[in-house]
Amino acid sequence: MAKKDKDFVKEVTSREEDYSQWYLDVILKTEMVDYAPVKGCMVIRPYGFTLWENMQALLDKKIKDTGHKNAYFPLFIPESLLQKEADHVEGFAPEVAWVTHGGNEKLAERLVVRPTSETIICSMYAKWIQSWRDLPVLINQWCNVVRWEKTTRPFLRTSEFLWQEGHTAHRTEEEAQEETLKMLEVYREFVEEDLAIPVITGLKTDKEKFAGALRTYTIEALMGDGRALQSGTSHNLGQHFAKVFDITFLDQDDQLKYVWQASWGVSTRLIGAIIMVHGDNRGLKIPPKVAPVQVVVVPIMPKKTREVVLEKAEALLVTLGEKFRMDIDDRDYSPGWKFNEWEMKGVPLRLEIGPKDIEKGQVVLVRRDTGEKFFVKEEDLDSTIEKLLAEIQDNMFQMALEFRTQNTTQCEDYEDFQKIIADRRGFVRANWCGHEQCEEKIKEDTKATIRCIPLKEDKMQGSCLCCGGEAKETVYFARAY
Amino acid sequence: MAKKDKDFVKEVTSREEDYSQWYLDVILKTEMVDYAPVKGCMVIRPYGFTLWENMQALLDKKIKDTGHKNAYFPLFIPESLLQKEADHVEGFAPEVAWVTHGGNEKLAERLVVRPTSETIICSMYAKWIQSWRDLPVLINQWCNVVRWEKTTRPFLRTSEFLWQEGHTAHRTEEEAQEETLKMLEVYREFVEEDLAIPVITGLKTDKEKFAGALRTYTIEALMGDGRALQSGTSHNLGQHFAKVFDITFLDQDDQLKYVWQASWGVSTRLIGAIIMVHGDNRGLKIPPKVAPVQVVVVPIMPKKTREVVLEKAEALLVTLGEKFRMDIDDRDYSPGWKFNEWEMKGVPLRLEIGPKDIEKGQVVLVRRDTGEKFFVKEEDLDSTIEKLLAEIQDNMFQMALEFRTQNTTQCEDYEDFQKIIADRRGFVRANWCGHEQCEEKIKEDTKATIRCIPLKEDKMQGSCLCCGGEAKETVYFARAY
Repeated sequence: MAKKDKDFVKEVTSREEDYSQWYLDVILKTEMVDYAPVKGCMVIRPYGFTLWENMQALLDKKIKDTGHKNAYFPLFIPESLLQKEADHVEGFAPEVAWVTHGGNEKLAERLVVRPTSETIICSMYAKWIQSWRDLPVLINQWCNVVRWEKTTRPFLRTSEFLWQEGHTAHRTEEEAQEETLKMLEVYREFVEEDLAIPVITGLKTDKEKFAGALRTYTIEALMGDGRALQSGTSHNLGQHFAKVFDITFLDQDDQLKYVWQASWGVSTRLIGAIIMVHGDNRGLKIPPKVAPVQVVVVPIMPKKTREVVLEKAEALLVTLGEKFRMDIDDRDYSPGWKFNEWEMKGVPLRLEIGPKDIEKGQVVLVRRDTGEKFFVKEEDLDSTIEKLLAEIQDNMFQMALEFRTQNTTQCEDYEDFQKIIADRRGFVRANWCGHEQCEEKIKEDTKATIRCIPLKEDKMQGSCLCCGGEAKETVYFARAY
Repeated sequence: MAKKDKDFVKEVTSREEDYSQWYLDVILKTEMVDYAPVKGCMVIRPYGFTLWENMQALLDKKIKDTGHKNAYFPLFIPESLLQKEADHVEGFAPEVAWVTHGGNEKLAERLVVRPTSETIICSMYAKWIQSWRDLPVLINQWCNVVRWEKTTRPFLRTSEFLWQEGHTAHRTEEEAQEETLKMLEVYREFVEEDLAIPVITGLKTDKEKFAGALRTYTIEALMGDGRALQSGTSHNLGQHFAKVFDITFLDQDDQLKYVWQASWGVSTRLIGAIIMVHGDNRGLKIPPKVAPVQVVVVPIMPKKTREVVLEKAEALLVTLGEKFRMDIDDRDYSPGWKFNEWEMKGVPLRLEIGPKDIEKGQVVLVRRDTGEKFFVKEEDLDSTIEKLLAEIQDNMFQMALEFRTQNTTQCEDYEDFQKIIADRRGFVRANWCGHEQCEEKIKEDTKATIRCIPLKEDKMQGSCLCCGGEAKETVYFARAY
């Protein structure tokens, strides 16, 4: 490696040295994001936004395939609407942005910039829903939301972020619960299959549930530094909002009833998960299914053969570009410099082509995930790329799963637990008595929280990790973002 | 027509009786939109939002095909940034929403909710652009914007609306001008070919140009009531913003230079244009290329044959649904009632199928635009639908063009002009001396404004319509939304 090339990589702090700085170095240097002139807000640059668009397209299809339709509700919510549901306002009021003036006039009623849209959507559902024939209502929206955060971090926690929020209304309690779990499963599938991130699906404790929900389900992922990230939530809202907003329907039995509701959301936070689960000291690694560039062509162009190589490279771009998301780097930098840059940008496959390759009718493909090099005959290129992208996608999931397995500990002893959380972090599977006292004590002692009560796992033997009392649940603990 | 069916149609005010009420009746009854509990804001319901998604998909592709990439910039703009460009702040300050508090704390600096994003984007471009190699910067964003409007009207003028805004930076004045006109042409093509709305492309007068622009270009369409609608704008910003935000680059000649900029946008206002250009007293007429539902299947189901018909109808939905956007109406209403409802919703083609049709191996297709009925053999269905949708798209454009031609008058006499604007409205082509005095007098006298100085038309003979002085331009006047 030439000195210059080493320097390039050196510009990114190593993960071991300072994980948090590594994260910032990578996302700024790869032009995923930039700081905005407004505190706590981010600019999502084209490279980061194209990733988000690819994620949106895949998830939006799944949302529509399960019968939902998109709509758009206003950005502003009158203060009086927000305040209708007591838990909800308590949860959100401390972190909302207030609009007090329109033009030069003071508003008669203050408006909040939506931190989430349950209240304004419920006020419309009360108007739209009259009869059992109107149910279910299955609506989703993609939008920006604002939560005034004190400590921010691009993608993970910002004052403004982008997300989708689904809001549904149902005839029965069972249907609402079915919807809640169905969408949790949609999220799991999306995050595992498309983002190559393994997740644990589970129920939040009462302490950690959404402000106003009956039950909150979550998908929890493990980041490269052993901290957990809540990556998506699906709430069974019960009839809390329906009663407050008077969303009733005349059922087939001629009785006036309250609807049952669910809501669910994932956000640009998932971009942070992709970076932290897959990234390494060379930079990003983006799963092929959502990568803005799946294959980057780097022509090797000694002066004499520059034109011939470039012509061939561009021809490949045209042919393969119909099937794969491609880019070409024909800038006047050394090949080594370009290799490093595109590795840092996390492009799954690099295609090198030089004068000798052209003579041999071949190209070189290099995998970002393993560094493996392949000499591929031109006629096999299309099918080889397709195969390799699928393998990379799969391998990235397997690597992340292996990391999680290695960083998940089963623990029965509170001292051990404290050591693990302090030293190695990761997920710790342990028993809990179900009382908030223990949950809070553990958080105070270790900063670890109950990430979820897993849905599909057996209970461990033994008693509560903290108080030694009877264990009600086996749960996952972790320090979280 | 049964009485009940007549009643259904009667619920929509006729356009002749009250155009403005017709507009509201149609968009509320077809569930395109609803009023929100926030003054001047709208809820775009799934039927309206699906239309917007279809429009977005087509335009987004054109924007990307011309080399632009999407990004996302913050919703909030610090007051100090907005105030940097004098014309710009003067134009927007009276109509912005102000955020003064975050959580329980008063902000050190007030924030405006973006009315447009030139200022915040320019502050980033100043950081990103260093060298001629960084140019051009070609970025677009789809987002919500807020302008505190006193008089609002769903889609046409609302306090919050959705739009796209392109913001580009170039090395030379010529390139910025080329970009400005290129995007105007992209808009013209999109609105004419996809929305079937003929537009006049032209330059805005200094009085009507964008606050901070050097030159503003526009596409102007004529609504069904003879009023014009500014349907999209493309601005050559010159170096106004570059100088204020210090966006400089080192050129190849080693000189530090200011960039040249353009910006361009269209919004959900275009949905209003679709409604007003194509709608009639039976409701909406949506152009096939963007229609949420292109073909609605209405099974004719006498009790005895209900199941057979429904099965056949659903089978058609599956086969044809792969190619066309389809819906089926199997509710327990009379066919006549359903016909009226789907006509009101503006679905281009209705497919009727009953027991007799099944016997004959045919279906009935009915065009929304002409009311024509076709008996089509099942094996010809796919190709016939494809052909008819294309014909409908074309016919809708031709009908709108004909209406515009009939409602465009050439005028040399100011008294005639005043009569036309008062009685028939429409576009009036007339000569103008180029002075703001005459422009203002005409507006005061008639409420008509200069919609644009057309790009591709010859000048008329004669003198200024208003002052009789030497004519500098032949322009289009109209009363506008």
